[in-house]
Formats: sequence, structure tokens, C-alpha cells
Amino acid sequence: MAKRAYPLSKVYGLLEPGPVLLLTTAHRGHANVMAMSWHTMMEFEPPLVGCVVSGRDFSFAALTATRQCVLNIPTVELQLAVVGCGNSSGRRVDKFERFGLTPVPASTVDAPLIAECYANLECRVVDTRLMNRYNFFVLEVQQAWLDPSCKDPRTLHHRGRGAFMVAGETIKLPSKAK
Amino acid sequence: MAKRAYPLSKVYGLLEPGPVLLLTTAHRGHANVMAMSWHTMMEFEPPLVGCVVSGRDFSFAALTATRQCVLNIPTVELQLAVVGCGNSSGRRVDKFERFGLTPVPASTVDAPLIAECYANLECRVVDTRLMNRYNFFVLEVQQAWLDPSCKDPRTLHHRGRGAFMVAGETIKLPSKAK
Repeated sequence: MAKRAYPLSKVYGLLEPGPVLLLTTAHRGHANVMAMSWHTMMEFEPPLVGCVVSGRDFSFAALTATRQCVLNIPTVELQLAVVGCGNSSGRRVDKFERFGLTPVPASTVDAPLIAECYANLECRVVDTRLMNRYNFFVLEVQQAWLDPSCKDPRTLHHRGRGAFMVAGETIKLPSKAK
Repeated sequence: MAKRAYPLSKVYGLLEPGPVLLLTTAHRGHANVMAMSWHTMMEFEPPLVGCVVSGRDFSFAALTATRQCVLNIPTVELQLAVVGCGNSSGRRVDKFERFGLTPVPASTVDAPLIAECYANLECRVVDTRLMNRYNFFVLEVQQAWLDPSCKDPRTLHHRGRGAFMVAGETIKLPSKAK
């Protein structure tokens, strides 16, 4: 899988459909990964992403301390890794090793990219005003990577209690919107 | 289509997959509807939803003045209405009439439900701290309605520039998460 740098102006099209993400952090020499569905675009360019990371998640401390992370977008082939990451804690498990995920150095942050994900977004935390009340972080995407061979990614979309919708066909409509 | 009240504790499962929404408002006797993809869950119960409504949208003034709206979830059958709403402004068009959408009175807010949408979430604005900087609103869902016959809704998921992913199959995985 040869990934290429992807224009920041097009990042919104990767996240707007609402896929489950794998969020990676690195803190004190320890990399971790968690599954996350609570995210939204907040600005086109530079791309801003709002997301909720629970204070109960091991990643919360790493994210607040380092203010860096990577948002990795998995496809259906990684379904067991996604669920495994959600079912376990980085306090006790090296999730990369356990679930066969390959960490790759990022270019602008210390958190690793996940090689098996078709897209990776290197991010920094730029606003924490809603962190105390809602565990809500505003991230700015610094650098994006994409596997250009993956045109219609079969992303996972969480419906709750183990149910995931898998991305279906893409249709083209006469929209004038960005 | 007979809709039933839907438990607030299960609302997250409707929004987490990331569907395009139709947001309705009512202000000074004028109801309006806009298409929206920038939203995220922020709390399970009571359900909190964060969303971005641009200051350029006609709905922005109604939302800030009334602090009320309804989030309606359309399926693929409403694709032309969704795109039509996105391509036009409530300043000039009665979008309900133009796109064949039926407004139905809500129970807790003045904004109308859209009859043709399989789910409707009546909301109030509860936090505007990020409104000035990002046009970001935190909504609390007051009342939810669902068409119980729609088990696997073929929702629309915006990929940008007229491309929409249509929800595919749902798979069941051994997740312990909510």
C-alpha cells in the first residue's frame, strides 16, 4: 500500500460520511489506539475536526498531555481490530501487537499512523474550551495521507451494541455544495 | 408511516453512523429546512449533539433566535429533496413546498418534523460557547420519533461535490461497547 500526501482541502470528504476512526496517540514512549465514532468536521481548510474522547479512555491522558494524535480510517477488513480496540484498554494491552496493526512514524506528530488504514490524518489539538464539560477537543489536521487505490472505501459506521453499517454504493447527485 | 416515540437513550445509534440530516427551524411564522452533515454525538443521555450551521445559512438566524430545531434523518428515497435543500436558500424558496416535504407539528419545539423522514429529533440549543468561533452549537434532544418499520435505513452520507455514499448492509460484531 503506497500512500500519498492528500490535499488538506479535500479531507472533509473523508470524514463527513461518519466512519468509525482509530485514534492513535503516543505518550512517554507508549503508543496506543482507540476506536472512536463521535467526530465532526468543523472547518474546511485548514481542516478542523471536533471529537469526544472520554475521560475514562486511556487515550485521554495522552491526548491532553501531548495535544497530538492521528485519525486513521479503517475499512471493513479491519473489523476485528476495530472491535478489539474498543473492547480493551491500552492500560493493559499493546493493541498494535494484539490486533495486528502496524505503527508507522508520522511526519508532523509523535503519534503513529496505522499502516493498514486507507487514510491517516495527523492532528494537533487547537481548542479545549469544551474539554472539561464534554471531553470535546477541536483538532487541526496538519498532514493527510491516502491510499489512492481505495476509491470507494468500505468504511464501518457504528450503530451501537455491536451493529455496524458497512458503506454501500456511492451515487452522484446534482449538488452545488462543496 | 406511523411514528412512535423513541427512547432518548437509543438516539446515539441513529446519529453515530453519520447520515446527512435535514435541520428544520421556525422563526417569525416561517419554517425552513437545510441539509447538514457536520454533526456528532457528545453525550448519551440526555442525548447531546454538536453541529455546525454556517452563518451564511438562512437557518443560522432562526437557530440563534429561537434556540430550537428538529434534526430529521432522510433516506435515499429523499435524495432529490436533500440535494434541492442544499442547493437553494430559504430566503427565496419555501423548500417544503418546492421539494415535497410535509411539515408536521413537533411536541416540544416550534420547528416542524418532516413527515417523510424516518426519524425526527426535537432539539434545543444548550451551549453556544463555540458559536462565534466555529458556528458550533450544542443541542439537547428533547423528544425523538421513529418509524419502527425502518430497521436498516438506507441513509445518505456526504462525500463531497455531489457524491453520496448510501448505507449498505449492517453486520454484527462482538463489541462490548454501548
